[in-house]
Amino acid sequence: MFKIDVKIPAVKAASYAIEIGTGFLRTLWRRIEADFDGHNKFVVTDENLVSAGHVGALLGQSEAPRFVISPAGEVSKNIDTVVSIIETMEQASLGRDSVIIALGGGSVGDIAGFAAAVFKRGVPVIQIPTTPVSQADASVGGKTGVDSLVSKNAFGAFWQPAAVYIDVETLRTLAEREYRAGMVESVKHALIADESYFDFLESNLDLILRREADVLERLAHYNCRIKASVVEADPREKNQRRMLNYGHTLGHAVESASGYELLHGEAVAIGILGAGLIERELDLGQAESRERIRRIFEKLGVPTSIPSNLTKDKILDTIRRDKKAVNMWPRFVLIEKIGCVYCEDGQWAVDVERDLVEKVLDELFCPVS
Amino acid sequence: MFKIDVKIPAVKAASYAIEIGTGFLRTLWRRIEADFDGHNKFVVTDENLVSAGHVGALLGQSEAPRFVISPAGEVSKNIDTVVSIIETMEQASLGRDSVIIALGGGSVGDIAGFAAAVFKRGVPVIQIPTTPVSQADASVGGKTGVDSLVSKNAFGAFWQPAAVYIDVETLRTLAEREYRAGMVESVKHALIADESYFDFLESNLDLILRREADVLERLAHYNCRIKASVVEADPREKNQRRMLNYGHTLGHAVESASGYELLHGEAVAIGILGAGLIERELDLGQAESRERIRRIFEKLGVPTSIPSNLTKDKILDTIRRDKKAVNMWPRFVLIEKIGCVYCEDGQWAVDVERDLVEKVLDELFCPVS
Repeated sequence: MFKIDVKIPAVKAASYAIEIGTGFLRTLWRRIEADFDGHNKFVVTDENLVSAGHVGALLGQSEAPRFVISPAGEVSKNIDTVVSIIETMEQASLGRDSVIIALGGGSVGDIAGFAAAVFKRGVPVIQIPTTPVSQADASVGGKTGVDSLVSKNAFGAFWQPAAVYIDVETLRTLAEREYRAGMVESVKHALIADESYFDFLESNLDLILRREADVLERLAHYNCRIKASVVEADPREKNQRRMLNYGHTLGHAVESASGYELLHGEAVAIGILGAGLIERELDLGQAESRERIRRIFEKLGVPTSIPSNLTKDKILDTIRRDKKAVNMWPRFVLIEKIGCVYCEDGQWAVDVERDLVEKVLDELFCPVS
Repeated sequence: MFKIDVKIPAVKAASYAIEIGTGFLRTLWRRIEADFDGHNKFVVTDENLVSAGHVGALLGQSEAPRFVISPAGEVSKNIDTVVSIIETMEQASLGRDSVIIALGGGSVGDIAGFAAAVFKRGVPVIQIPTTPVSQADASVGGKTGVDSLVSKNAFGAFWQPAAVYIDVETLRTLAEREYRAGMVESVKHALIADESYFDFLESNLDLILRREADVLERLAHYNCRIKASVVEADPREKNQRRMLNYGHTLGHAVESASGYELLHGEAVAIGILGAGLIERELDLGQAESRERIRRIFEKLGVPTSIPSNLTKDKILDTIRRDKKAVNMWPRFVLIEKIGCVYCEDGQWAVDVERDLVEKVLDELFCPVS
């Protein structure tokens, strides 16, 4: 009998930059060419970005090989799309010296990030997020993943980007409903981490709805700083990072039960209001704050109650199958007050009785008069 | 314009154990159950391991969910198999607390290791290699990967095992040809790293061919130590680790040109002899050593010349498409003497003129009389 210990060497701390600005997409390619000189570039984007003109703006005359995801959106966020991307890269004779440039929303970033993580055992990825959610959230943290036939995010990897470029001008071409729903993640960030950010959102909502560049840059800055500080404290989602799931446990369940008729942000708004009702039942938070949150969602024009064509049973069933569930029931992230997550015995997600959740769901079905 | 630097935290050095013994497969499951208490176990193996009785030996009465790769071998080492494994795990409601146990040869280890790297953003994998090549090589280093339709190892990840268990008794059930071909990687390890190991192989070849347990344990121990020391010095294959490719540049090309009629080890034996001829032309190494290497391969009964039904053009074409090629021509690993790789200006793989390689190929087609 022999025994050998194999050492796995340490990996040094590193960092990457997120740059936030307005209208720099048209000059970015030259910079990427310079920064990644000698690397083959491969662009992953989707058909919406082509028709909005952003692919043309980024690439100009460049004939860099590319993969245009079609149809755009969650429906293509699956392993088949990743396989097609890798095979397209192979056919273009790209090797380990490649860099993938992801231009698009959260799905594009997830798909392209995962493809970069697994192509030839990993190549760098540059993220250029173009939606409120991806600019607020998906570009920081290194989570990538795609769905299997059976469930969401069955495939995935932690893969940090080499650089992130946020041009808030890309938000101008978004449809109104997508844009408004996308702002919900910003509200979530404010609720879990920064009361002054919540004040900023409240007082600038008109400018936000007019998509004013200066305000959007500040929004992206707030969001990325908050996300980065949470992720740096807990990169592999052992505990604290779970606070980013505020409103998401109920939100995911409502989104799934709607057959994805509700947009992610719309469902999360309902989930955040649901978390508020749970907090009320547990004597956390203040009624006045809950009212402020409701008003912000009303001004954003996102739903504040569960659509009546959904059923409570279906929502409960999805909650039970939550990927973070233990014994068929997930823990919930709650806040003590705006900007401050409730933490019990070092845990950032807490047990909530099933009866209480059912009661809250009943209430969420009734629009407040 | 804003700029944020996101820190990616350091990852501490870690280690895992390789245990080498004889006949402990039957009691190993109990130990895995104890070491990974509270984790769901999922076994990946192939039909050969089932029919050889090793799956039964490992699992006993356990009804742990499993995936049996069929057909066994390289032909199943592709992304479709990985997708089937992940979907089987999903259907068994396995979550992030799972551990994958890989029982089999190199392909099983590669497939299961890659599945572990991408399931729910990564779960631990225990490797139980059962062939000479996987015991010598694949169980150390953390390289995992599978093929796309277009090329070999297009998908992959670096994913270190949580533990490796080598039971040399599993080698007893292997077919004679596979067993003998598998010994070529041991010869390669001796050639690049340890002359005394080469002496050991030479003097124990009869016991090796009789699959004597004590000698096989020592072989596995030599192999894993050599592989581990090379990998520890260069975990991401920047330079020094390339020495493990000794004999593989020509070997891969001959293997591919044979349409995989030649086993990997058989092709690598030809590649090692080819490297020896290149060394002779460049005045490296000694004629006497080359003769010792040829004799060891003759006693192993592996080919010492390129089969006459292969064509030089096809082999050259594959060399040009080598994944490590730059400007359509790879560098070659060469040795100065047994146990010592030739290193030029800090490079462990060196340029060799195409004409010289062609000349060597011509010579490799002619069996030595």
